[in-house]
Amino acid sequence: MKNTALPLKRSWRLNVLATVFIIYWSLNSFAQPGPQTPRYAYPAQLMNELKQIQQAALKSDYAYAQLRHLTNNIGPRLTGSPQAQQAVEYVASEMSRLGLEVQLEKLSVPHWVRGQETGELVKFPGQAPDTTQRIILTALGGSVATPAEGVTAEVVVVGNFDELNALGRDKVSGKIVLFNKRFDKQMAAEGYGGPAYGQSVVYRGAGASAAARLGALAALNRSPGGGDFRLPHTGAMRYAADASRIPAAAVTAEDADLIADLVTQGPVRLHMTLTPQTLPDAASYNVIGDLKGSEHPEQVIIVSGHLDSWDLGTGAIDDAAGVAVAMQTAQVLRQLHLRPKRTIRIVAWMNEENGLVGGRTYAKDYAGELTNHIAAIESDLGAGHPLGFNVKANPKALPMLRPVTQVLESSGATLMNPSDETGSDISPLESSGVPAFGLFQDSRTYFNYHHTAADTLDKVVPSELAENAAAMAVLAYAIANLPDPLPR
Amino acid sequence: MKNTALPLKRSWRLNVLATVFIIYWSLNSFAQPGPQTPRYAYPAQLMNELKQIQQAALKSDYAYAQLRHLTNNIGPRLTGSPQAQQAVEYVASEMSRLGLEVQLEKLSVPHWVRGQETGELVKFPGQAPDTTQRIILTALGGSVATPAEGVTAEVVVVGNFDELNALGRDKVSGKIVLFNKRFDKQMAAEGYGGPAYGQSVVYRGAGASAAARLGALAALNRSPGGGDFRLPHTGAMRYAADASRIPAAAVTAEDADLIADLVTQGPVRLHMTLTPQTLPDAASYNVIGDLKGSEHPEQVIIVSGHLDSWDLGTGAIDDAAGVAVAMQTAQVLRQLHLRPKRTIRIVAWMNEENGLVGGRTYAKDYAGELTNHIAAIESDLGAGHPLGFNVKANPKALPMLRPVTQVLESSGATLMNPSDETGSDISPLESSGVPAFGLFQDSRTYFNYHHTAADTLDKVVPSELAENAAAMAVLAYAIANLPDPLPR
Repeated sequence: MKNTALPLKRSWRLNVLATVFIIYWSLNSFAQPGPQTPRYAYPAQLMNELKQIQQAALKSDYAYAQLRHLTNNIGPRLTGSPQAQQAVEYVASEMSRLGLEVQLEKLSVPHWVRGQETGELVKFPGQAPDTTQRIILTALGGSVATPAEGVTAEVVVVGNFDELNALGRDKVSGKIVLFNKRFDKQMAAEGYGGPAYGQSVVYRGAGASAAARLGALAALNRSPGGGDFRLPHTGAMRYAADASRIPAAAVTAEDADLIADLVTQGPVRLHMTLTPQTLPDAASYNVIGDLKGSEHPEQVIIVSGHLDSWDLGTGAIDDAAGVAVAMQTAQVLRQLHLRPKRTIRIVAWMNEENGLVGGRTYAKDYAGELTNHIAAIESDLGAGHPLGFNVKANPKALPMLRPVTQVLESSGATLMNPSDETGSDISPLESSGVPAFGLFQDSRTYFNYHHTAADTLDKVVPSELAENAAAMAVLAYAIANLPDPLPR
Repeated sequence: MKNTALPLKRSWRLNVLATVFIIYWSLNSFAQPGPQTPRYAYPAQLMNELKQIQQAALKSDYAYAQLRHLTNNIGPRLTGSPQAQQAVEYVASEMSRLGLEVQLEKLSVPHWVRGQETGELVKFPGQAPDTTQRIILTALGGSVATPAEGVTAEVVVVGNFDELNALGRDKVSGKIVLFNKRFDKQMAAEGYGGPAYGQSVVYRGAGASAAARLGALAALNRSPGGGDFRLPHTGAMRYAADASRIPAAAVTAEDADLIADLVTQGPVRLHMTLTPQTLPDAASYNVIGDLKGSEHPEQVIIVSGHLDSWDLGTGAIDDAAGVAVAMQTAQVLRQLHLRPKRTIRIVAWMNEENGLVGGRTYAKDYAGELTNHIAAIESDLGAGHPLGFNVKANPKALPMLRPVTQVLESSGATLMNPSDETGSDISPLESSGVPAFGLFQDSRTYFNYHHTAADTLDKVVPSELAENAAAMAVLAYAIANLPDPLPR
């Protein structure tokens, strides 16, 4: 999950009792279609197959085994890294083993590599003689390096762009700007982690250029997320064309608090060094594996997650889990000897985190075939208990999917939540009119971990991962076997 | 708080509803003394003064201001560091400003300094070509350095000393041993964090020597604590005289899981470097400030916390909070113009974390006066809501303190919990027969943070700190003004 706001609607409250309420509400709203929307019934055989798929996925440890291999054995999979390439080869090989028709879709991807990173306060009120105070920071993806000797400058703290601009060039030029936007933990606890994250990460994405326009030497942003364990949170930033390129890093929430407190007492000077490099674009791949349809092989349902991750952790919830549950769709159909009527295409996208080259290239390479793309599904919101799906589709598609929610009712994944945001990688397809679905997990703790060193295998509960795999496989197979394609 | 087990009794259950239950239970048990223990009543004036002290402390931000200065302005205060010396000077100056008679008690303290520390898996199953995987570790206090080129060796994983010894020299010699003892989060959640911590930290303290006896090249221990944010947890280790001194570090829980998983799949080799130094012992000080008693100035009640901290965080909960609430005792008495009948002695101990030189030296320097030490109080279990005190004293002392618990009832700090462990620094006094009291906080999250980089100011809730200050000041003043000294 990049820096997009989550597709949660403020119109209903997701709190500690959310799941129970949502299930109840969903059942009621879906179980009683109005007289103007006649119930769309699936053939008994399809309903039976969907239930088999669900039960087999819930019992399987296949997705978890894939997750374990991608995270523990391969490790972090930053775009352009040898680990990303190893992951491509592993997934392709595993898809072949499952009997899929595999292709590698060639991409030219950004190749940014992290280097050393240090921060220390060299001047601050009350300082003991000959001491500094360590600041924990991490370079943002895409940042330029500092000069070899680092940047040493006074820190100015602002809460938002307006405060920055109100300071003006006189007070910003030659300084390091800290954007100290506090993550709204309460919103996240209520299920609105996505919007809370969106409020924070605008400073990560655009802060450096805003500061540079006023002559700043470097930019810092307060790490978003609700964890309070002094963890820096990386992520992509972008330089605007009209601003000089200055180094950009995230400090932990605790370090932002420290600096903000000291600045109220007197001048604070920070010394920071970052040594990242932006290398020439590299070759990489989307991994695509087809389970060909028996009746309409030319009609495609994409089932996907993204294979690349940030480099601080091992990218378990962002997004090896998504790839693993997509692969489980193929595995469970093979296990049950079920062949879909339309083609189910498993995709492990590359470069979601810092470029979206995989998603964009696919939409371009397959531009002539998108009318035959019946749906695109992605999982990129972690691996928590699934509540259902975020959906961007013709409203007429929803009644056709009510039987899916009936099947998923037993594991609580009954939402079909109309949303403008379903998944970054499938957003170019969605823009071209392909019905899009994003697995919608309980993400109340997601933003505490993703993009940090703590995004590791232990954060995934195997039974919840299996619930996600079941939801994805059931939806994919249903769409693949519906009598009619979903309406555009 | 060092590596001592917490003084919690398994005989009563501390769970999410603990506070309410404890208050209820305490009120009942203390409010109805049996016929054989006649109620010990305080003069009305003393009761009135205790209530004034409590209310003034609850309203004051003095302790929080001290905590803020020690953590944010001075920073980490590892024994022997310039910051520790700055803290000594600051506290002495502040005590003087409060009108205390201040002395610096000279100490000769260990002087260990952390250096660089790196860890990476250089060989593991499934590894991508030309890659390593980063391991997050931190040197244990007292560890020797690795050779300059680091240590590179296969890792063997054991759960305890028995498993290590069962492997024997053949399988351990030339290896790096990982003690993978899992912290019992459930025990901590139920309020038994101390015993859970005690079960884990034996491997931190004694693991290196146990491994060295079998020829290991280095030792790692799984970080204790219940946080799952990939934070390493430092702390003291000690070399046994009969074993060679090998480097010792803590890895995060996540990294321990990773290594343990990979080792089940094939050989895992780790490269680690640590560059700490043990310098010659340094001069340092306990800071002692007396508010002289009006009637029995020779009789002393110690009110204390420890001024040194580990170096990864800023030592807010371990233990600037303890020093701050001790200082608040003096401040509130000065503010209210209350002079105790016995001397209240505020002590900021040095070197609790890695040597206990402060506590030991005081007991030696004052050996001739300990019969006039009426009580010693310490706060070193964080700054959470206080439940009362852990007490090591003649059981006859407890009825004399019931009025104290009556006063503290309104803020829920009513426990007088008989315990063998009250505070590390005052343990030498307690061994000499001085009645000892340890502030007993809700410590269910304490072990997630202390000794880590995340032990920072934001972890302290100002109102809870004030509750601690109130409890400490009320107990200290009561003991100072009782008609009779506490029985030995």
